[in-house]
Amino acid sequence: MAFTPTDYLPYDFANRRHIGPSPSEMEEMLGVVGAGSLDALIDETLPKAIRQEAPLDLGKAKSERELLYHMRRTASKNRVLKSLIGQGYHGTVTPPAIQRNILENPAWYTAYTPYQPEISQGRLEALLNFQTMVSDLTGLEIANASLLDEATACAEAMTMAQRVAKSKAKAFFVDRDCHPQNIAVIETRAKPLGIEVIVGNPDKMDPEKVFGAIFQYPGTYGHVRDFTAHIEKLHEHKAIAVMSADIMSLTLLKEPGAMGADIAVGNTQRFGVPMGYGGPHAAYMSCRDAFKRAMPGRIVGVSIDSHGNRAYRLALQTREQHIRREKATSNVCTAQALLAVMAGMYAVYHGPEGLKAIAQRIHRKTVRLAKGLEENGFKVDPRVFFDTITVDVGPLQAAVMKSAVDEGINLRAVGERRVGISVDEAVRSADIEAVWRAFGIRRKDDDFAPEYRVPEAMHRRSDFLTHPVFHMNRAETEMMRYMRRLADRDLALDRAMIPLGSCTMKLNSAAEMMPVSWREFSMLHPYCPEDQALGYKELIDDLSAKLCQITGYDAFSMQPNSGAQGEYAGLLTIADYHAARGEGHRKTCLIPVSAHGTNPASAHMVGWDVVVVKSAENGDIDLDDFREKAEKHSDTLAGCMITYPSTHGVFEETVIEVCRITHEHGGQVYIDGANLNAMVGLSRPGDLGGDVSHLNLHKTFAIPHGGGGPGMGPIGVKDHLIAHLPEKSGAVSATPFGSGSVLPISWAYVLMMGGEGLTQATRVAILNANYIAKRLEGAFDVLYKGPSGRVAHECILDTRPFADSAGVTVDDIAKRLMDNGFHAPTMSWPVAGTLMIEPTESEAKSELDRFCDAMLSIREEIRAIEDGRMDRENNPLKNAPHTMEDLVKDWDRPYSREEACFPPGAFRVDKYWPPVNRVDNAWGDRHLVCTCPPVEAYDEAAE
Amino acid sequence: MAFTPTDYLPYDFANRRHIGPSPSEMEEMLGVVGAGSLDALIDETLPKAIRQEAPLDLGKAKSERELLYHMRRTASKNRVLKSLIGQGYHGTVTPPAIQRNILENPAWYTAYTPYQPEISQGRLEALLNFQTMVSDLTGLEIANASLLDEATACAEAMTMAQRVAKSKAKAFFVDRDCHPQNIAVIETRAKPLGIEVIVGNPDKMDPEKVFGAIFQYPGTYGHVRDFTAHIEKLHEHKAIAVMSADIMSLTLLKEPGAMGADIAVGNTQRFGVPMGYGGPHAAYMSCRDAFKRAMPGRIVGVSIDSHGNRAYRLALQTREQHIRREKATSNVCTAQALLAVMAGMYAVYHGPEGLKAIAQRIHRKTVRLAKGLEENGFKVDPRVFFDTITVDVGPLQAAVMKSAVDEGINLRAVGERRVGISVDEAVRSADIEAVWRAFGIRRKDDDFAPEYRVPEAMHRRSDFLTHPVFHMNRAETEMMRYMRRLADRDLALDRAMIPLGSCTMKLNSAAEMMPVSWREFSMLHPYCPEDQALGYKELIDDLSAKLCQITGYDAFSMQPNSGAQGEYAGLLTIADYHAARGEGHRKTCLIPVSAHGTNPASAHMVGWDVVVVKSAENGDIDLDDFREKAEKHSDTLAGCMITYPSTHGVFEETVIEVCRITHEHGGQVYIDGANLNAMVGLSRPGDLGGDVSHLNLHKTFAIPHGGGGPGMGPIGVKDHLIAHLPEKSGAVSATPFGSGSVLPISWAYVLMMGGEGLTQATRVAILNANYIAKRLEGAFDVLYKGPSGRVAHECILDTRPFADSAGVTVDDIAKRLMDNGFHAPTMSWPVAGTLMIEPTESEAKSELDRFCDAMLSIREEIRAIEDGRMDRENNPLKNAPHTMEDLVKDWDRPYSREEACFPPGAFRVDKYWPPVNRVDNAWGDRHLVCTCPPVEAYDEAAE
Repeated sequence: MAFTPTDYLPYDFANRRHIGPSPSEMEEMLGVVGAGSLDALIDETLPKAIRQEAPLDLGKAKSERELLYHMRRTASKNRVLKSLIGQGYHGTVTPPAIQRNILENPAWYTAYTPYQPEISQGRLEALLNFQTMVSDLTGLEIANASLLDEATACAEAMTMAQRVAKSKAKAFFVDRDCHPQNIAVIETRAKPLGIEVIVGNPDKMDPEKVFGAIFQYPGTYGHVRDFTAHIEKLHEHKAIAVMSADIMSLTLLKEPGAMGADIAVGNTQRFGVPMGYGGPHAAYMSCRDAFKRAMPGRIVGVSIDSHGNRAYRLALQTREQHIRREKATSNVCTAQALLAVMAGMYAVYHGPEGLKAIAQRIHRKTVRLAKGLEENGFKVDPRVFFDTITVDVGPLQAAVMKSAVDEGINLRAVGERRVGISVDEAVRSADIEAVWRAFGIRRKDDDFAPEYRVPEAMHRRSDFLTHPVFHMNRAETEMMRYMRRLADRDLALDRAMIPLGSCTMKLNSAAEMMPVSWREFSMLHPYCPEDQALGYKELIDDLSAKLCQITGYDAFSMQPNSGAQGEYAGLLTIADYHAARGEGHRKTCLIPVSAHGTNPASAHMVGWDVVVVKSAENGDIDLDDFREKAEKHSDTLAGCMITYPSTHGVFEETVIEVCRITHEHGGQVYIDGANLNAMVGLSRPGDLGGDVSHLNLHKTFAIPHGGGGPGMGPIGVKDHLIAHLPEKSGAVSATPFGSGSVLPISWAYVLMMGGEGLTQATRVAILNANYIAKRLEGAFDVLYKGPSGRVAHECILDTRPFADSAGVTVDDIAKRLMDNGFHAPTMSWPVAGTLMIEPTESEAKSELDRFCDAMLSIREEIRAIEDGRMDRENNPLKNAPHTMEDLVKDWDRPYSREEACFPPGAFRVDKYWPPVNRVDNAWGDRHLVCTCPPVEAYDEAAE
Repeated sequence: MAFTPTDYLPYDFANRRHIGPSPSEMEEMLGVVGAGSLDALIDETLPKAIRQEAPLDLGKAKSERELLYHMRRTASKNRVLKSLIGQGYHGTVTPPAIQRNILENPAWYTAYTPYQPEISQGRLEALLNFQTMVSDLTGLEIANASLLDEATACAEAMTMAQRVAKSKAKAFFVDRDCHPQNIAVIETRAKPLGIEVIVGNPDKMDPEKVFGAIFQYPGTYGHVRDFTAHIEKLHEHKAIAVMSADIMSLTLLKEPGAMGADIAVGNTQRFGVPMGYGGPHAAYMSCRDAFKRAMPGRIVGVSIDSHGNRAYRLALQTREQHIRREKATSNVCTAQALLAVMAGMYAVYHGPEGLKAIAQRIHRKTVRLAKGLEENGFKVDPRVFFDTITVDVGPLQAAVMKSAVDEGINLRAVGERRVGISVDEAVRSADIEAVWRAFGIRRKDDDFAPEYRVPEAMHRRSDFLTHPVFHMNRAETEMMRYMRRLADRDLALDRAMIPLGSCTMKLNSAAEMMPVSWREFSMLHPYCPEDQALGYKELIDDLSAKLCQITGYDAFSMQPNSGAQGEYAGLLTIADYHAARGEGHRKTCLIPVSAHGTNPASAHMVGWDVVVVKSAENGDIDLDDFREKAEKHSDTLAGCMITYPSTHGVFEETVIEVCRITHEHGGQVYIDGANLNAMVGLSRPGDLGGDVSHLNLHKTFAIPHGGGGPGMGPIGVKDHLIAHLPEKSGAVSATPFGSGSVLPISWAYVLMMGGEGLTQATRVAILNANYIAKRLEGAFDVLYKGPSGRVAHECILDTRPFADSAGVTVDDIAKRLMDNGFHAPTMSWPVAGTLMIEPTESEAKSELDRFCDAMLSIREEIRAIEDGRMDRENNPLKNAPHTMEDLVKDWDRPYSREEACFPPGAFRVDKYWPPVNRVDNAWGDRHLVCTCPPVEAYDEAAE
């Protein structure tokens, strides 16, 4: 009767909100799969030998409300002062319209990297705006769609310079006025590559000795210099000039291109992206046209679709680690898409006049601040500046810094006698007066005559942001609609499952996302005093402890802010360990042939030699080959890099033996954590024999993919490697905790799931994958299964037979799925001509069924071709995706409009329409355009 | 050169973000309009006599950032305690997914009332879910789409009971256990209608004397009673039984329908809508099927479209004030749509098991709390309860209340010796222990055996929420996608201009909306101690002062939470004034024939007789007729109700004379503030002679329309009326400041606009309207212009000629505009067969042009019919709107798919598609279904 206590738990986030299938659906699905119970399925799937002994014990799982309560308490332990520290991070005013409609909108933050351009036109346009902004402001022809942070951008620029320089010199010159974190990461990166880094005064640089140089302006202490002459000298010696420049200053200052620079790098954080205790932000890189094919990272370009209409897509995709693998000098395969979109929108919102006005306000405030200090006898350095000055305070540095903190202001300690101050757009007169008070000056910020402290020669003389998109009305109504239109062009998790194998596109819950916007998390400077970040410390310590328990490792470093950077940091850690033991000669790394391309690229970046290990027939590592090669390279074995469960989506039983062999020969084991979502609570890489792993917090731990970034790739290590983590052996990213402000997402996820919930999520992820494999059985061949016929958390469908039987490629199927209302699974990886499907635990049975229905209908379409009932060229697969325009036009196809646009899976009323037909990648690469095309070009395309 | 100071103001919210056209666009537009300058245009438009003398002086306008900073400081003056006060308002857990995806999503909050059903299917479905939830939980067949608050719902139920009762008795019985605010509003409403209100013990009720009665359970002090016998007695005497019931308790308790009730009312606030210091929340009303045509407010119903497909729309729209006007007993024309959507989604998210589990948890916590008190010798009353108890503390009431506050808990003072405690879903064990400590008890909330304190006879025995929508998976992924799909079906301000005349659909900026979500504003109980709401006090005082300056009044009451309620409150104020002067016989009200239907309805509600005044040829008030009628009714003249500028969109010069005449004859002038957006900064109703006005904060002052609510209709009065405001003369709504938590929006708007910005907004609103009038000149006749040929902030197009010339109705044009990508202007009001267009200041020239292009192309289509080039029946106008389905099907129309779906104005890639064809309103009213149809019905419709 009514008052019988119900056993339904309404606040059970893990089982009711995060995990898609309900308990009764799971029963049905187990029936289809043919497993007696979820436990039985897991027992069949995971070999006993790899199962962890004790269940996870992470405390009681929190409800959403408890989480937010707990999070607020933790947040309140962070103290938000006004940070005028500078050093690459500045206060900024995030336009509320952008915060609400992009940062806090699942249509933007749950999207995947735009590899499928037809369903990503919105964010591709937004990223093209970003590239145009960077290209215009730096005065260089080609910009990429962002890099992880400014420090890694500097390091990438160095290796790029080496690739393109005609000079054969081995050293790289670094302006001593570069930010210290940039110098640190450059040095880390240079060392294993054998590049000598010379830090010094540019005026004393010997251009003969270097293949390139990096100069910074404004310098870390505020100097504004024209490097035209230095660059000329470099060019005389066939060396490459890299400029690191503050993006805001470029609205007023002579741009890198005008100085003759080849490459420019920097951070776009201060274009509306909160400091976030270090990240995520979008670093930028641009270069001269001549070097575009050497540029790392993603580049959005303009192409055409199959009807000749303009369409955006990622350009030059077959570069870098994809083709270079073990020869790569970069493993970058991520951008900071969400943040680049925000920064680009900030430029769209303000336009060139607005940006210039903001920069002028910043400069005028800095001048007023400086004059107030000078009037009172302080020595301000430099004489000319944009937004940053230093003040000599003799022995009173600590006293002034402390006094400033008492006023609610963080300043920067420079050397032992100076204090640095950087002014930003959020600084008010009251802040200027507070700074003065910290210097003992009582004065109103009022009666200053306007004055400029930039020499005429350093004034910018060229226009920028001339494209119409930067000349919209700038009314919020227009802007809101523009952002909505772009969002609507894309297919993200808020509309459909994204079954990308190896990408773990799970729910990014609203409760997990909310704290990211809180000022206690978003407004902290990465180098603020530790006692102002106690909330972050609590969060990071607790998250690290929980990750240790989950993985079986003993410590974590949160520095790496992408998966690939995690790999690199992990290998550096191993290398430092070997070196410390006097075994620095260990430089051979065994990598299975099926490894992700970043694995060999990362190994190369730490100076190792890659030895490829074969796969056995069933996709497993060929144990005999592995043993043989380990023995052969026993003396020089640095370690191996494996992925678990394997990239084939199977729990290999051999893993323990692989680890044992590696250790036997003196090597260390790197286990790539990309597939950890198949293990959490059931098996621990640390128990299997792993010494290091990186985790993709943006996969397994619920950080959204942001349309192609941010990501976080912290590494876990065993005890013996703790002393060799990046914190001790050399920075890999600009800030101590990488992209600090997204860590609350993963912490929230772990706190709300609890140990049981996390484990159940893993089990359901495996159930979901096996359910799909079962439903598609017969129609498609599932490659690679475990001994009991089960797959792990993903499954690979073989589409190669259809090439012969029907002339249908994996691409055709991927594009046709868009008509059915889906993002394609991962294409042709790890095996060409296959589709790798990973549903994750967050998809309910109804969505899995919708997807399976779509796949089965595609199979029937292929059969119709095979049977000759459908033309081999003119069919729904070849013509996919279909657009609204197709419907409107005359229809002369051998199948109906209905069949074209409403195949099984497609919603009737709520259908998602790809905005363009199939994009021609090759055309775009032949006619490379990576900035917003001129308006006439649009007109032409329309004709 | 570069460093020339730019005069661009990047943080100028008013001119750059809120106002649509840029300065250069305004120049172009003035050229089209033929005005030398904006000043000149305004001078031509507004008669000199009505212009205000001094410009507004509201202090320096704030930037978005300054606003948020200021708002945070103000917010911090509110103290958020845990309020266990109850009395109709309870803590609740808003699911973050609902907060993010509905409350904070412009697709939901910027939508208009779903009068155009084809482009409102999403929120109509969401509201149908709400109605189904209410109908199911109350056990009554028909529910409406929400009312303003529980107190007004009670009053509406009383007048509805009088309408439908066969009893001719004149009294209404009110259970003394009703919440005090409900009793107060019932009494206010009853008085002018001559209804005697008998407040007492239901057991002592004399059913012969009453036409109806209202009983409440749980009672305001917690009693849970079965009123079946009382209701039977009422029915024996042909009287109507109204039940006020707590929505959460109905998941466990015998429902009103099962007791035989005729009408049920209550609040759905605790279904996930924060208390918000009093509102907005969605009150509910349901009734037996027999009474459905007497129900006030909006009702969503199911109908079919022109292709026979299921479609939702507002049912029975021609009821109430539309047809009754001066005979109306209700002026309700608003719902609390956004909040009803939230409450409905809360039910969808939790489902019946979840709601029941939540209610059980609440009850068990209440039992534990009570037992802890009882064990320690406290007398807890009542013996049986759901969530509310009172405790006799003798003379220690104040001490216990204070002690509770020290523990962070607000309790309720009941009488002089008792303390009331209401438990909600957000109460934790720590809170229970804190309450105990306030009573001097130190105890852990742990070792209680489960126990229920509801008698078996009061257990609910029927199922509820059986429809599949309440049995979705409840996974957040599913829920997020459901909300997105519904949002995508609707056309709101985030996609296109909504040029509704008289509705002022201006920008609702993100910065204005943000503070609404802050806990300092959202978590306050309306009856919390004043010293916990000092931030609200500051906000309300300052907003009131600014509104006084804007309007020329001397004081404001924030009680009315809709425009219509503002009218009513204003007239009550006047009535009380007359009565206090011994002139209570003044009951004649002059109202121009063009007045909004709510005007006579409101007058009737205060017991006045309406005398209609004619319009002159040009739409102005016929001054002779006005004078004549004022003279004729001089002895009994209560006042007049006029709208300024008039509903014809013209600044009448006669207004001052109208006011003078009214005063001369002893009447008071009510100026409807609906069109204040044409006046702010230029003219003040208080200066024109107005004694009272209501303002629609949801029009002029940027509160979003929420898809049909919330609204705020505060009234401003002259000095002599201050003593007669609702605060003194009788409550009109449940809480002192109406929907308190949306007031920050209007305050933010005023603070960011400043006096100059507000004035410029008015000027640009007038420019935009005149620009449209000019561009459409020749194609359409603009009815009603001022003497100089200008319109005010809106213009009325005459479409009546097309009925004869082409068989085209105003409806056809409105539906065709959907194909062009627009919401129709206001249809057939104030003149049948016309379109009233109000662009507001927030629309940029590009959007105005898109709209004008659309209207001109429609005119060309009409011309094609007129010329015989297009069929009179089978044409794009008659077949509008066109859906995707139309495109997919065979096409045998005399115009192309292209012409059908991509007329001028329609976006190409980003086209908005109406999800249904034209809705058949009459069919739906003949086959009235106002709850979610059974699943089979969907199947049928699909066939």
